[in-house]
Amino acid sequence: MEMNLDKNGLLDEEILTSERLSLLMEEKKYALVKEELAATAAPDLAELFYELDERYHPLLFRLLSKEQAAEVFVEMDTELKEALIGRFSDRELAEILDELYIDDTVDIIEEMPANVVKRILKNSTSEDRKIINTILRYPKDSAGTVMTTEYVRFTGDMTVEEALLHIRRVAIDKETIYTCYVTGRDKRLLGIVTAKDLLISDPETPLSEIMDENVIFVHTHDDKEEVAMKLEKYDFLAMPVVDSEGRLVGIVTIDDALDVLIEESEEDFAKMAAITPTETPYLKTDVFSIWKSRIPWLLILMISSTISSAILTGFESALPAVLVLFVPMIMGTGGNSGGQSSVTVTRSISLGEVEFPDIFRVFWKELRIGVMCAVTLGVVTFFKVWLIDGLLLANDAVTLTVSLTVALSLALTIIVAKIIGATLPLLAKKIGLDPAVMASPLITTLVDAISLIVYFFVAGSVLNI
Amino acid sequence: MEMNLDKNGLLDEEILTSERLSLLMEEKKYALVKEELAATAAPDLAELFYELDERYHPLLFRLLSKEQAAEVFVEMDTELKEALIGRFSDRELAEILDELYIDDTVDIIEEMPANVVKRILKNSTSEDRKIINTILRYPKDSAGTVMTTEYVRFTGDMTVEEALLHIRRVAIDKETIYTCYVTGRDKRLLGIVTAKDLLISDPETPLSEIMDENVIFVHTHDDKEEVAMKLEKYDFLAMPVVDSEGRLVGIVTIDDALDVLIEESEEDFAKMAAITPTETPYLKTDVFSIWKSRIPWLLILMISSTISSAILTGFESALPAVLVLFVPMIMGTGGNSGGQSSVTVTRSISLGEVEFPDIFRVFWKELRIGVMCAVTLGVVTFFKVWLIDGLLLANDAVTLTVSLTVALSLALTIIVAKIIGATLPLLAKKIGLDPAVMASPLITTLVDAISLIVYFFVAGSVLNI
Repeated sequence: MEMNLDKNGLLDEEILTSERLSLLMEEKKYALVKEELAATAAPDLAELFYELDERYHPLLFRLLSKEQAAEVFVEMDTELKEALIGRFSDRELAEILDELYIDDTVDIIEEMPANVVKRILKNSTSEDRKIINTILRYPKDSAGTVMTTEYVRFTGDMTVEEALLHIRRVAIDKETIYTCYVTGRDKRLLGIVTAKDLLISDPETPLSEIMDENVIFVHTHDDKEEVAMKLEKYDFLAMPVVDSEGRLVGIVTIDDALDVLIEESEEDFAKMAAITPTETPYLKTDVFSIWKSRIPWLLILMISSTISSAILTGFESALPAVLVLFVPMIMGTGGNSGGQSSVTVTRSISLGEVEFPDIFRVFWKELRIGVMCAVTLGVVTFFKVWLIDGLLLANDAVTLTVSLTVALSLALTIIVAKIIGATLPLLAKKIGLDPAVMASPLITTLVDAISLIVYFFVAGSVLNI
Repeated sequence: MEMNLDKNGLLDEEILTSERLSLLMEEKKYALVKEELAATAAPDLAELFYELDERYHPLLFRLLSKEQAAEVFVEMDTELKEALIGRFSDRELAEILDELYIDDTVDIIEEMPANVVKRILKNSTSEDRKIINTILRYPKDSAGTVMTTEYVRFTGDMTVEEALLHIRRVAIDKETIYTCYVTGRDKRLLGIVTAKDLLISDPETPLSEIMDENVIFVHTHDDKEEVAMKLEKYDFLAMPVVDSEGRLVGIVTIDDALDVLIEESEEDFAKMAAITPTETPYLKTDVFSIWKSRIPWLLILMISSTISSAILTGFESALPAVLVLFVPMIMGTGGNSGGQSSVTVTRSISLGEVEFPDIFRVFWKELRIGVMCAVTLGVVTFFKVWLIDGLLLANDAVTLTVSLTVALSLALTIIVAKIIGATLPLLAKKIGLDPAVMASPLITTLVDAISLIVYFFVAGSVLNI
């Protein structure tokens, strides 16, 4: 994307379009293509690849600078990556791998089939291979799997000047040079020095004098979402990751943390809408994959809804016909009430604001909110049923007692729904299940069944049936 | 948070607890408190303030270094901030304001009542006041409202050495020094230079030689969520913001972009669960505020559910009793199907992956997914109703025709629900409504009504009633 001043002296973005690129390739104006590619950012280049005919891909890729090629490669989706690797010579593959940061290589390895992984490992340096294998052994979704090992490390006896010289030498291979780490000879973390500190300090100062010793760090096995939230909390550009011995083994940079947070919240959105999360963007996902991510949940929910049907069928004959009319309203409001609480609590869990020991505080809070909502909606319902359904629509079956039964059932259902909705995700988390799945329509199914039972119980008590 | 090696030589985090702090304050060991506070990160200090008795706040605040005081102040919630400002002398307030980045001051102003705002403006420098007033005039949720004006600006004729000297001089007041901007005398953006470029380049090199001229930027009036997504896309640490004349007026830093993304996705979660978004964390929000954020939606949904009830009441007498049994299942599955589509499309809109012109692609995609889901669930339902409800449970009323009617109605409902769920958020966005509100249970209400009409229509056609 290039920026120019147009005739009016205003800024104007001149974007390389796929039509233009395609035309230039057709006309074999490769020198011009090379120039235009060089002026385009990697994420935009990746998009151009998607839009362009596949036969241009290998040539186009070779027209990129080495650095750019690696950046664009990282931005592509699995399919495109695999196709390109298939066309790379071993030397080309080795070159790309050399340019990639190690955490990106690991990401690629994780999504490739075994034969491609083999080729990647074969064409990596033996040192990289060792690091890759270590990273691959970290538990799923742990800090170890998203960290990069390419950070800048100093020893405490270095001066600011020496540190700056060191950065100058190694910067090109490091993912960030803006937060640097001071360690002992045993790689134990002693302090943090930012590039800002280095730039504003006297060159003779020893690092031990300017480093911040109050280091906040995470462990390799910590959950990557917790790490990302911690990075966000402290406004860091990078978070140091230490092993069980307290040795610095890597850093998680803010761009990766941002990706983790977006990915995890999109997963929660999917789960709460009863969808199995997929990683590809909606428009790029094929119809079959989307169907596969949605149909199991629709089936489960459909089948579980038969529980409510069974309850309804069982009690229906015992219930005056007039009460059946209000079943959908009670079930619906119960479901919505429970949904509000479960989504709130589930997100609070994800954001690290609520944990299992808070369950009693959550219970007490939702109980009060539940009672307030129950009273409000109960009163509205009572008058609505009595005045509108009963008097205005002149339905003789809707007596004052019926209005009271409906209102009372609704109120009780709301309170129960709120408490279940708020506590179930916490219980799910405690026993190792995913709270977001609980906040999904599954909770509605449960609340549906409960609301019916409440309704029949109240009807039985009030109407003596 | 301090890091020490414990007896076993393992890393250990020694956190300042509110109990310890409270004890130290009680015993008036202020020198020790000061020392411990200095070793604690601002977000942790803010939490300590919440946990500590309010009478300690003013003194505690005065024991912080000026820099820390500003950082902690930013982390506090509105209530605490207001209480503290009320206790500040004008001089103290001016000192804090001097330490704050201008974007943080603007955030504070936006959440304070008029009299506090007046005091803040009175105690700001006239230069700051001018900038604050400009920022406050930008439209709600625009890039202008989240940008900071404290960035590092170079002219193209400066050398690397001069640039580094300049950074040294101004760094202390800038929100980031890692991405710097080269502008002409008229403040038009010419290029970008990173601190990394400066550190690895020869001191004599003019900036015009090393700067990246392919600048990606945003405008002051662009939506802040789009700006944040763009920053994420390009993996930037800061995004330059230009005015309508193309002059650089500010930057949006990645930490603020991250906050925007988290805030916006939490708002979407709330809306999709039929809750009016609030900004405070769940456990810190009082019961009344939560009730207020939930009750209007419960009321609206309850009232709108009477539409379905009315349809049901109207058709019920015309429908064989056996068909009524399957109403909850058809309505529920329709709601879930529509919910899946609407949440997917709404999030894709939020992430900038789908826009209104994609509506036909979305329609075509959901039509195919809808048909596939409809066929799967239709077949399952047909056999389930025929074999289990009909033959196994020996319900004579469940004939082959009834099974067919139920299956067909379910299938049609799913297709319609998916199309409505997917296209309604796009239409809402087009006419300026919030798509997330559409993805909320509101869509379920609509689908409920439609599924009933479909059911009666199919029953009428197949059963000739």
